[in-house]
Amino acid sequence: MARRSGRPSTALLSRDGIVDCAYRLMREEPLDRVSLARIAAELGVRTPSLYNHVDGWDELLNGVRGRVIEQFDLSGFGHQPWRAAFERWIRSYIDAFATLHPTACAAIAVLPMKAHPAAMAMYEVVCTAMLEQGLPDDDVLPMLVAIESFAIGSALDLRAPDLYTAPDAPDRYPNYYRLFTDGDGNRRERSVAAGVEALLDELAIRLEQPEPAATAGTTRETS
Amino acid sequence: MARRSGRPSTALLSRDGIVDCAYRLMREEPLDRVSLARIAAELGVRTPSLYNHVDGWDELLNGVRGRVIEQFDLSGFGHQPWRAAFERWIRSYIDAFATLHPTACAAIAVLPMKAHPAAMAMYEVVCTAMLEQGLPDDDVLPMLVAIESFAIGSALDLRAPDLYTAPDAPDRYPNYYRLFTDGDGNRRERSVAAGVEALLDELAIRLEQPEPAATAGTTRETS
Repeated sequence: MARRSGRPSTALLSRDGIVDCAYRLMREEPLDRVSLARIAAELGVRTPSLYNHVDGWDELLNGVRGRVIEQFDLSGFGHQPWRAAFERWIRSYIDAFATLHPTACAAIAVLPMKAHPAAMAMYEVVCTAMLEQGLPDDDVLPMLVAIESFAIGSALDLRAPDLYTAPDAPDRYPNYYRLFTDGDGNRRERSVAAGVEALLDELAIRLEQPEPAATAGTTRETS
Repeated sequence: MARRSGRPSTALLSRDGIVDCAYRLMREEPLDRVSLARIAAELGVRTPSLYNHVDGWDELLNGVRGRVIEQFDLSGFGHQPWRAAFERWIRSYIDAFATLHPTACAAIAVLPMKAHPAAMAMYEVVCTAMLEQGLPDDDVLPMLVAIESFAIGSALDLRAPDLYTAPDAPDRYPNYYRLFTDGDGNRRERSVAAGVEALLDELAIRLEQPEPAATAGTTRETS
């Protein structure tokens, strides 16, 4: 984008450009190195100029959240079987938040979602899909939030380069040691897949189906 | 604890006291307000004195992680039915991390787990329980990490006071609006319960059992 390739004059300053710059910084750097002053410096303007376009730090974070949410893939809803559509959405949710440095991911994850149009539209699509599939009213928001919690936790995990290390005392931790050293190196992908499957299977269990949950696996493809 | 009630002299300074102080601060305050200098000030000592007991910031975070992990409830393993034991562990995991301010929670969640004895011991207990229950080798670490991701995401959610707000345009987001305003106010508890149930149900599906859960497992593997 042109606005990233140079330093725009104040006349070219826009909310979009400021949010783009903030998002770019928050992808790579810990949040404590990102500030309105830093963003102003990156854009070659004075800090007070930013306030003509954004109300402050929280609104800037909210704008970055918008950039993340825009990457969610809702295209499966209404077009694909429900399970594929939900998997597409959940995986894109994880990947989009994993573009952020963990510190920014956590800050945005706990930022109040006051009237964020992209978030509201996304929730409406997902709630509607759950309801249309037959999920009981009382299960919709709890499942939605459970999915979001897993997605945020997974996004943090994806950005933790060497989180798990082999135990240093194989004889004290024999099972963990064996599983760890036998691993095929796809820990992250397999963990995300396990969590996504858990949530999809739970949706299947809770859907109003003629068959009991125990046979959810066989009936789910027909719904 | 005595060490929290006053300002110990340098002679009384210990690794435990330093970690306790750090944990206390990280429960209530954003991580950018906690530092070695701040902890030294709280303890009434000079910052360099801390280095006689802790190697630096990351080791301090690692110490705080130890305090959190010590609160995990592993007491069900070997004594309760597997599902109750796992639920006890998962819920205590969420509650323990939710004692931390979200910024500290995120920082610790992505901190490399180099030879942390409490973490290693916890993993050994959980891996052993999964294996004893009949979970296939390849499923153990992925399920473990999926559970951890959900727990961290839930801990962040529990500390976000007003994360979700009613949509401001009921006519644009009718389903979300209706579900949101009909909610019984136990959103957090119900969301945690939904995620915990999803993970327990997924464990059940993946356990090698002659009973119904195996039905779901067999079709899942072919997809």
